[in-house]
Amino acid sequence: MTTDAPQTEPIRPEARNPRGFADRRGRDLIAERQLVRRVSEVYERWGFEPLDTGAFEYADALGKFLPDADRPNEGVFALQDDDEQWMALRYDLTAPLARFAAQSWETLPKPFRRYAFGPVWRNEKPGPGRFREFVQCDADTVGSDRPEADAEIIAMACEGLQAAGLDQGQAVIRVSNRKLFDGLFEAGGVTDPVQKLTALRAIDKFDRLGWDGVSALLGEGRLDESGDYTKGAQLPLGVASTIEAFLASAGDAGLSRAETLQAVARAGGLGPAGEEALAELAAIDSALNAMKVGQDAVRFDPTIVRGLEYYTGAVFEAELLLDTTDDKGRAVRFGSIGGGGRYDDLVARFTGERLPATGFSFGVSRLTSALRAAGRKDDAIRGPVVLIVFSQDDMQHYLDAVSELRNAGIAAEVYLGRASMKAQMKYADRRGSPAAVILGGDEIAAGTVTIKDLDAGRALAAGVADNDAWKAERPGQVSAPRDQLVAVVRRIVSASRTDS
Amino acid sequence: MTTDAPQTEPIRPEARNPRGFADRRGRDLIAERQLVRRVSEVYERWGFEPLDTGAFEYADALGKFLPDADRPNEGVFALQDDDEQWMALRYDLTAPLARFAAQSWETLPKPFRRYAFGPVWRNEKPGPGRFREFVQCDADTVGSDRPEADAEIIAMACEGLQAAGLDQGQAVIRVSNRKLFDGLFEAGGVTDPVQKLTALRAIDKFDRLGWDGVSALLGEGRLDESGDYTKGAQLPLGVASTIEAFLASAGDAGLSRAETLQAVARAGGLGPAGEEALAELAAIDSALNAMKVGQDAVRFDPTIVRGLEYYTGAVFEAELLLDTTDDKGRAVRFGSIGGGGRYDDLVARFTGERLPATGFSFGVSRLTSALRAAGRKDDAIRGPVVLIVFSQDDMQHYLDAVSELRNAGIAAEVYLGRASMKAQMKYADRRGSPAAVILGGDEIAAGTVTIKDLDAGRALAAGVADNDAWKAERPGQVSAPRDQLVAVVRRIVSASRTDS
Repeated sequence: MTTDAPQTEPIRPEARNPRGFADRRGRDLIAERQLVRRVSEVYERWGFEPLDTGAFEYADALGKFLPDADRPNEGVFALQDDDEQWMALRYDLTAPLARFAAQSWETLPKPFRRYAFGPVWRNEKPGPGRFREFVQCDADTVGSDRPEADAEIIAMACEGLQAAGLDQGQAVIRVSNRKLFDGLFEAGGVTDPVQKLTALRAIDKFDRLGWDGVSALLGEGRLDESGDYTKGAQLPLGVASTIEAFLASAGDAGLSRAETLQAVARAGGLGPAGEEALAELAAIDSALNAMKVGQDAVRFDPTIVRGLEYYTGAVFEAELLLDTTDDKGRAVRFGSIGGGGRYDDLVARFTGERLPATGFSFGVSRLTSALRAAGRKDDAIRGPVVLIVFSQDDMQHYLDAVSELRNAGIAAEVYLGRASMKAQMKYADRRGSPAAVILGGDEIAAGTVTIKDLDAGRALAAGVADNDAWKAERPGQVSAPRDQLVAVVRRIVSASRTDS
Repeated sequence: MTTDAPQTEPIRPEARNPRGFADRRGRDLIAERQLVRRVSEVYERWGFEPLDTGAFEYADALGKFLPDADRPNEGVFALQDDDEQWMALRYDLTAPLARFAAQSWETLPKPFRRYAFGPVWRNEKPGPGRFREFVQCDADTVGSDRPEADAEIIAMACEGLQAAGLDQGQAVIRVSNRKLFDGLFEAGGVTDPVQKLTALRAIDKFDRLGWDGVSALLGEGRLDESGDYTKGAQLPLGVASTIEAFLASAGDAGLSRAETLQAVARAGGLGPAGEEALAELAAIDSALNAMKVGQDAVRFDPTIVRGLEYYTGAVFEAELLLDTTDDKGRAVRFGSIGGGGRYDDLVARFTGERLPATGFSFGVSRLTSALRAAGRKDDAIRGPVVLIVFSQDDMQHYLDAVSELRNAGIAAEVYLGRASMKAQMKYADRRGSPAAVILGGDEIAAGTVTIKDLDAGRALAAGVADNDAWKAERPGQVSAPRDQLVAVVRRIVSASRTDS
């Protein structure tokens, strides 16, 4: 409740962000937004329409599906409204979609295909690279039980990865089906939902902990390196060893999707639900083949589970395949950059009627980091051209020049602080400006303009450009007739983009 | 506090949004995003870089500047973090900028020029057209005391309005200066900050209440039509009548900016702060003239105050000038679509050092509604081309066709529900599709494809297109060789955009 808020405030508050919330600016933010735009363009080309729901949902509508459901506050940011109802900030974009679809189903085109992007919030313990607010970019189809709907979501995610800038072979989407485990549990006599969920979340850690760690979590429990003890699922030993055989059945990354299905079937012990899962995966494979999605781009991998509780069938996970290194140059496994699956019961929570649905979510900041790890440079993103200010009396000249540049589509500004020319040049440097324009008294009297090519200037200063031919082409500073301003600046701006 | 959250949840929650939060989709949302993109492009061309801060700020950092500060919860959504610190969702994009600038000043280019867009949250009473979450799109310059910085913000807002689609003469930006009132209060011996703020907020209602209403609010108080009583500022009568003369001094909308300043100066009683305000406005006028900003696009208007407490100098307000009508056809005053001003003390709250700043904020949904009121149509925004599904056996044909269309840059999808052709055509209609593609068994056997021009079909059905020449050109349905699919669809899609 907020009525307890302190009514007095310190005279001078400290300027700091809340823990786990980040400020993003300039080049990084532009790169992230380009990524969202490119992925959104793919979603639109595939016929998905945009949807934006509010940040808050009623807590009962949001449900409790987060992996950290045992933490206080259930992992969400919640508060009580004036009318005593509990509201919480959305923790993903899927739960609000389910609420919206249930609420508006009669008036929607069916199937309802929507994409969405925006921040989601999780009230988790923040840490390095672990935020409490992050951006997701999702596409979902509600109202189709066809395996083609799953295959389309997967194929579209592949195209999204490429549109974002990851080449073929730099990422893979792994696909499995929750019902494989439903079948294994059923066949082994495990019926307690909490026990099943605990087991699934243990298996979800397979890529990080390996079989030994997972085995402990399927049994009594596990003490990790930090000394924290996690209670296990306490599965019967027989079931755990069936799961071991199952997980091992498809360890060979060289298998095609069809071969993986055969290997899983051979391992056996799947029960009726597991057989159903295999049939669904076979249909998805068939549709992926029809869409010409390569065996390297999408693999079947029975170790894929996904942490969220609400999945009911096919599950997907996108992973960066590049070797990446941390700040200290050590090799790091990058891990998941997105995922999704089929959640046929989420709308039924509201309506009581099953409404099949499937979707995929990119973690936008994860994907942005992945692109950086893949060597994608943001250098082409440049700051504005800066008009240097010498005298208030010549303001009209500066404003005319900057207006000409903007009308030519070139980002430009008059320096509006009060500082020396040296400080103004430093400003242009900090902004990543390609050029600075000088209209001093001499230039104005002579009807000329001086233009500094800041990249060339840096190259000259660093001795990079000691070649005379290069210097003749990009001399660092050009004097030109005033009416050549736009032409000269345009040449420098283009060159700065090509070099980077 | 969130630990009181109910631990049991009803079996079947009701699907509904929290009060005052809206879902936006499809065409409306696309139109809104186009608007944000166009305004952002202007900001970038003027040299502003993007910044995105988190949704939460610590409550002390956010401060209390909202007009409704006397409401419970101070008009914000607040909650207490694990570490007992109070956090609140941002109520605008300016307060977080001030926090960020104070926190990062050493490392920023100076002046720091940033634009930002995104949702803001106000815990106010929701009503028709009055939401608790809405999108703003801002640009600010921090670290410049130059009047050119204010003029630039104003001129850029004008260009933003044009980029959004409002022609010259459809909107105006009115400009004044808070110090005019500082001067009037000083000269009249009014020194109590609460009294001054109450008076300013009364004057801010001048366009709605007229002088009689404002006069009551400057005095004892006012009983409104709904029976609510608002306590007044209780200014001395002499001060109130000086304010009346002042507000009347520039009632003539035909005055140029310079003439308005002369009229205000003639009314007198401004004191030293007021004289300073006039000098600042004269300098802004001079810079606006240098930027060739017309007298009709930007006017000086001493009745402009702005509701937020943190403004210290120039204030701006953008207003739609068109006559608009409500649902019942009655003429409605549309009101403000954005505003801003100079806030030289907001960063000093943190640092103790004055850091001049000025900025402007568009209310994005207000502006979107304004564009609709101005007759801007969203009809050019179309849904995807829909491939009709007849038989699972022919899925490969459908998928190939949809892939060809997408590769040609045309948004397209295979219908993925399970429904009759009639239901599929209804789906295409609901999506606003320009065309539906039919690849039935006959077409596949004959190597042809049938394409329905849905706009032409509608026109024919409505009898709109009874002209034979028109029908020959757009016959509603075309049969073509299969390899002409993309060419025929492209022609229909282009025609559907031109017609709308």
